[in-house]
Amino acid sequence: MQGTTAIALVGSGFMAKVHSHAYRNAARFFELERTPVLELIVGRDAAAREAARSRLGWNRGAGDWRAAIADPAVQLVDLAVPTDLHAELAIAAARAGKHVLCEKPLAMTAAAAREMLAVAESAGIRHAVAFNYRFLPAVALARKLIAEGRLGRIRHWRARYLQDWLHDAQAPASWRLDAARAGYGAHGDLNSHIVDLALWLVGPIAEVVGDSRTFVDRRPDGRGGEAAVSVDDATTFLARFQGGAMGTFEASRFATGAKNRNVFEIEGERGALRFNLERLNELELFLADEPAEIQGFRTVLATEPEHPFAGAWWPPGHVLGWEHSHTHLIAGFLRAIETGAPFAPDFSDGLRCQLVLDAVAQSVASGRWEAVAGIA
Amino acid sequence: MQGTTAIALVGSGFMAKVHSHAYRNAARFFELERTPVLELIVGRDAAAREAARSRLGWNRGAGDWRAAIADPAVQLVDLAVPTDLHAELAIAAARAGKHVLCEKPLAMTAAAAREMLAVAESAGIRHAVAFNYRFLPAVALARKLIAEGRLGRIRHWRARYLQDWLHDAQAPASWRLDAARAGYGAHGDLNSHIVDLALWLVGPIAEVVGDSRTFVDRRPDGRGGEAAVSVDDATTFLARFQGGAMGTFEASRFATGAKNRNVFEIEGERGALRFNLERLNELELFLADEPAEIQGFRTVLATEPEHPFAGAWWPPGHVLGWEHSHTHLIAGFLRAIETGAPFAPDFSDGLRCQLVLDAVAQSVASGRWEAVAGIA
Amino acid sequence: MQGTTAIALVGSGFMAKVHSHAYRNAARFFELERTPVLELIVGRDAAAREAARSRLGWNRGAGDWRAAIADPAVQLVDLAVPTDLHAELAIAAARAGKHVLCEKPLAMTAAAAREMLAVAESAGIRHAVAFNYRFLPAVALARKLIAEGRLGRIRHWRARYLQDWLHDAQAPASWRLDAARAGYGAHGDLNSHIVDLALWLVGPIAEVVGDSRTFVDRRPDGRGGEAAVSVDDATTFLARFQGGAMGTFEASRFATGAKNRNVFEIEGERGALRFNLERLNELELFLADEPAEIQGFRTVLATEPEHPFAGAWWPPGHVLGWEHSHTHLIAGFLRAIETGAPFAPDFSDGLRCQLVLDAVAQSVASGRWEAVAGIA
Amino acid sequence: MQGTTAIALVGSGFMAKVHSHAYRNAARFFELERTPVLELIVGRDAAAREAARSRLGWNRGAGDWRAAIADPAVQLVDLAVPTDLHAELAIAAARAGKHVLCEKPLAMTAAAAREMLAVAESAGIRHAVAFNYRFLPAVALARKLIAEGRLGRIRHWRARYLQDWLHDAQAPASWRLDAARAGYGAHGDLNSHIVDLALWLVGPIAEVVGDSRTFVDRRPDGRGGEAAVSVDDATTFLARFQGGAMGTFEASRFATGAKNRNVFEIEGERGALRFNLERLNELELFLADEPAEIQGFRTVLATEPEHPFAGAWWPPGHVLGWEHSHTHLIAGFLRAIETGAPFAPDFSDGLRCQLVLDAVAQSVASGRWEAVAGIA
Repeated sequence: MQGTTAIALVGSGFMAKVHSHAYRNAARFFELERTPVLELIVGRDAAAREAARSRLGWNRGAGDWRAAIADPAVQLVDLAVPTDLHAELAIAAARAGKHVLCEKPLAMTAAAAREMLAVAESAGIRHAVAFNYRFLPAVALARKLIAEGRLGRIRHWRARYLQDWLHDAQAPASWRLDAARAGYGAHGDLNSHIVDLALWLVGPIAEVVGDSRTFVDRRPDGRGGEAAVSVDDATTFLARFQGGAMGTFEASRFATGAKNRNVFEIEGERGALRFNLERLNELELFLADEPAEIQGFRTVLATEPEHPFAGAWWPPGHVLGWEHSHTHLIAGFLRAIETGAPFAPDFSDGLRCQLVLDAVAQSVASGRWEAVAGIA
Repeated sequence: MQGTTAIALVGSGFMAKVHSHAYRNAARFFELERTPVLELIVGRDAAAREAARSRLGWNRGAGDWRAAIADPAVQLVDLAVPTDLHAELAIAAARAGKHVLCEKPLAMTAAAAREMLAVAESAGIRHAVAFNYRFLPAVALARKLIAEGRLGRIRHWRARYLQDWLHDAQAPASWRLDAARAGYGAHGDLNSHIVDLALWLVGPIAEVVGDSRTFVDRRPDGRGGEAAVSVDDATTFLARFQGGAMGTFEASRFATGAKNRNVFEIEGERGALRFNLERLNELELFLADEPAEIQGFRTVLATEPEHPFAGAWWPPGHVLGWEHSHTHLIAGFLRAIETGAPFAPDFSDGLRCQLVLDAVAQSVASGRWEAVAGIA
Repeated sequence: MQGTTAIALVGSGFMAKVHSHAYRNAARFFELERTPVLELIVGRDAAAREAARSRLGWNRGAGDWRAAIADPAVQLVDLAVPTDLHAELAIAAARAGKHVLCEKPLAMTAAAAREMLAVAESAGIRHAVAFNYRFLPAVALARKLIAEGRLGRIRHWRARYLQDWLHDAQAPASWRLDAARAGYGAHGDLNSHIVDLALWLVGPIAEVVGDSRTFVDRRPDGRGGEAAVSVDDATTFLARFQGGAMGTFEASRFATGAKNRNVFEIEGERGALRFNLERLNELELFLADEPAEIQGFRTVLATEPEHPFAGAWWPPGHVLGWEHSHTHLIAGFLRAIETGAPFAPDFSDGLRCQLVLDAVAQSVASGRWEAVAGIA
Repeated sequence: MQGTTAIALVGSGFMAKVHSHAYRNAARFFELERTPVLELIVGRDAAAREAARSRLGWNRGAGDWRAAIADPAVQLVDLAVPTDLHAELAIAAARAGKHVLCEKPLAMTAAAAREMLAVAESAGIRHAVAFNYRFLPAVALARKLIAEGRLGRIRHWRARYLQDWLHDAQAPASWRLDAARAGYGAHGDLNSHIVDLALWLVGPIAEVVGDSRTFVDRRPDGRGGEAAVSVDDATTFLARFQGGAMGTFEASRFATGAKNRNVFEIEGERGALRFNLERLNELELFLADEPAEIQGFRTVLATEPEHPFAGAWWPPGHVLGWEHSHTHLIAGFLRAIETGAPFAPDFSDGLRCQLVLDAVAQSVASGRWEAVAGIA
């Protein structure tokens, strides 16, 4: 490798930890031309920032994100911060000529996402949104099989992203439950992932109708008081894909017993697929062209050299974990920055997702089907 | 056993076969006071009827259902015929003082179901609708655990009843695809089952919004021509339960790879349940009250003497099949006729289900949420 | 159907219940030329016998098995009695010209089994042993796939038949724990099944080495005292098949959590199979000839018309239960009696199984590999 | 962190890759007092070594392992080399006062392992053997539950470690198939893992009887010729544990369809456990003390803060991969070096495992049960 790609990471929480891991390890497993350098980590609290810097392996720390954007050495800015900060920071970084990787959902609203995309395009920088599940071997295999026509025309998409960390009414409030910081609740956090997968695997969505619920509207604030919950605890919706498929979506933080159960099921004319994030190395595949006697869902353990990403790691059957999705995404984005090759998901994908999320929210308010606006 | 219960069965297809099996075997495994007598089978085609009579074990055959209703020896009339015949036959049987077991869905419309219920009640006969899945050990166990409060307040209901026998566009037409005979398609055939389970396990539904699709609208008619498909191939809907839970429902005959995949998942404050008809002896249960270290979905193999219905059959682990659900239902209904004890599901349950189905159909037409009418 | 096949059943316990069910229902689902008649049930205790007769649907009862053998009307004698009675009764029945169906294991020893076979053959009667698991659709499919060469040469057989009804040291004694009545314990009861499947699916076994254990050697006798346990609670063994495959076998009644877990796994040059009796409608199949990208174990739900036995019952996905294995066996044996067609498993298969069981017992005693004697 | 632990790694293959990953990342997720320094990587081929050095992140390279041992800066020597080199290198390193981490199996024979242990102990260095599966959260949880008595006395251990990379007769030869380099074949490579788990989870083994097979005895040598296969392709054995449990073990590289299927099942008086490496985040647990109505195997997703190792990584449900087992082992060993705390598995565990492997080999030769020699 010759040269470096210097990175600034804004944020010091859970996502900062996993992104740092990905930057540290990407070049150990994937071919990059330049060495990724973990240059600067930004966090407001000095002690927490320094602890994160040291633990996660960053060269320097700063208290204000403007430092990252002003720093001429920084080439890539990574935004692992609450959603309300995405637009301002991404736009500032883009205008400063930095490449930007932004956590999902891309923005508080489709309007903000649209502006982010416009600025990024006019600035000519590379941009990405962290829809990391596209980068799991089993999911990338699903995309490949569909693209090859193995399922034929798609009839049904069925996805649910279920967690249960709020099912206890005494679980404390956080920024994720505050609409002013997070925008949507489970809808933005979880439906954003499965909407992106649906758009990527099945295609554009024409119309949606949805429902949202906040089961517990006040929670301990961790300081002896209570905080109002201003986001949805769960959001479900039906979708009509432009290509004719029917879709169902469900996101919940109240799905007792589900820890990180991102499940999708797809049925087409010629076959079907099933995926579950809690068993993320596996893809279940049904092929209707086979003789009836031996038809059945097969469980493909996506750890073979023939599977996307898997060959970079260990021998067959030596399974990967959740974090690898981020390492694959980041390795791919670094490589795209180096080579100028196309990269997805970018801000246009972030906007596409946001348009669906917003149409659902509009439907929750109107009580009827709402059309999903176009990206243009 | 002293005395007999003489039965007339109208129909000679698949459901007639399984009901006959249940009548023949119910008293071998369950305590009945009177011997069920397979007295009369009714079918229009003489050859087919005679073949069914002989094969299925009925004493006599008749070509017209009026024979069954006119026969003073017949005490119970079982309607295993297309949906468009349910109301006329059930009403005639009730008026003749016969007890009636009717296949599901109960009627073409809620209005017809309401009339059936009214006539049955005023005639004072016993009535039942064949929502057989309530009678599986694992499902009855689910009901018991919920009634005991093991799940706490229910937050989510998620059900799908998926089959794939129409995913091939060359699969032939039948009465089930003709709205004039069947009423609804997948909606009436499959959603009726999971709506009944939802109402039984979670409670009344206040509002629904839905979507229907006919993917293939003309099919071979088996006589060298084509027949129009006038029913839905798939129907999905969202529901708001009166008790505050959110629901998603999906029925499809185009779910490639799904043979008889009736799945429900329920999450409550304190626990969760999962069931899949293709593994019908198993109930998955999660209890949130347990220590986090050992929490997890357990697979209860519902074949113990402690489980509903299971003790009547074989030792633990000797699993039951699909047909047993019908045997349990019929044994229970025969017993209720003998003793006068309450029995459910009866026509009021058939009506409750129909009201939900109709509200969904109304929503498909209106494009918005529709309230579910009350039974009264 | 013209004519009848009159049956006498000796025994009134669990196996009598399931055999009766099979005789009552076989002709309802399978093509038979003659009507099976449940003529005579034999049991020593008059009250229990009469209860069984009435409940299970037999015409007459008798207190001594000699009545069945002396009765000229009886054509088939079914032995659902403890193992120590098999040889005497089967030989007497055969000499009287009755066809015989005998529960497994066929006899107390290979020597006794050999005599039973010789008498049956010289008497010219039809004989069968109730290795019912051959008659499950998924298992019969396994046999077909192997016969077609889909797995290539077999390398590994791995089977375990695990139950847990004795893991509680206070579980009471019964004839099954008494060597004088049962011969072997778990070895005879459970290993007999998986040995038969191994011989049928993979082929003859050349040598074995084994281990047995009685974990609890005294148990409550149900009369306030204690009874010695004189059989094995668990027996494991290794096998060398004549064809070169390696085998492992395990039977236990102390496998806590396993209710009826009869599992086999087979690997060959070109593919592999897995089966689990607790999910008996499913066969897992791996085909090594497929592209690596989509290889995986597929779960075949063996309920299609293309699957053995399944077409006689319900539509696809309407799963069968454990009892169906007996109905299939008995329908097949009745049909073989009618037509003279070959039928297996017969007493020669019972003997083959016994020779393996005995060689294992010999190895447990000798502490070394023992050859399995030939049938001739 | 103050100070450093300087490491030399001998080897540049698959295991070198995963050990390097662990050294690079251990301090990012676990509390260490000193920074691990990837100082020196040793490999004979200069080009391959330099590629590995650069890719895997080592400071320097060397062509001879003696360089590592002679280097005063090196504190820990990691042996990721073929088995025939273990004893010489480990002994030399220990004598030079280096701590040693050695891949499994520890040695070619128990005698060599015994010498390694003696030298290590007399040198006073810290030693470890890479039985990495002890360090998976689910497996460590299994150990904790057993230690707490949740299973009661253990009755059965059943393990199989199945791979299929040799099932194709044209798969090429390698050092792993050469007895002079590898010692045993599947027995040393795979049984060593499950023997270690058995000893750790259940306790010492008293006696064994086994069987080995080489299915394909000549393979392409990759240079146009053929090489003899001098190791076992598969080895099965039965075991008698000192505590009274019965055990079955199977290792194979011919188990078509099994990629890395390390499975163990344990039944005790009060409960049972099941584990499968292909779903390594899950532990299945059965507790016999629960009411029969809700008993069943629960699937514990071992990703909670309450589970061993899991809290260091991501939120619940964000599953780990295979490599994490090595990171946990290496973090623990580095920490033990820092603090002087006990660490297992060490060379005594390597020897214990070897004594079982050797007794099995002896049994394969003798055809009878063989006692396992004691460590002392």
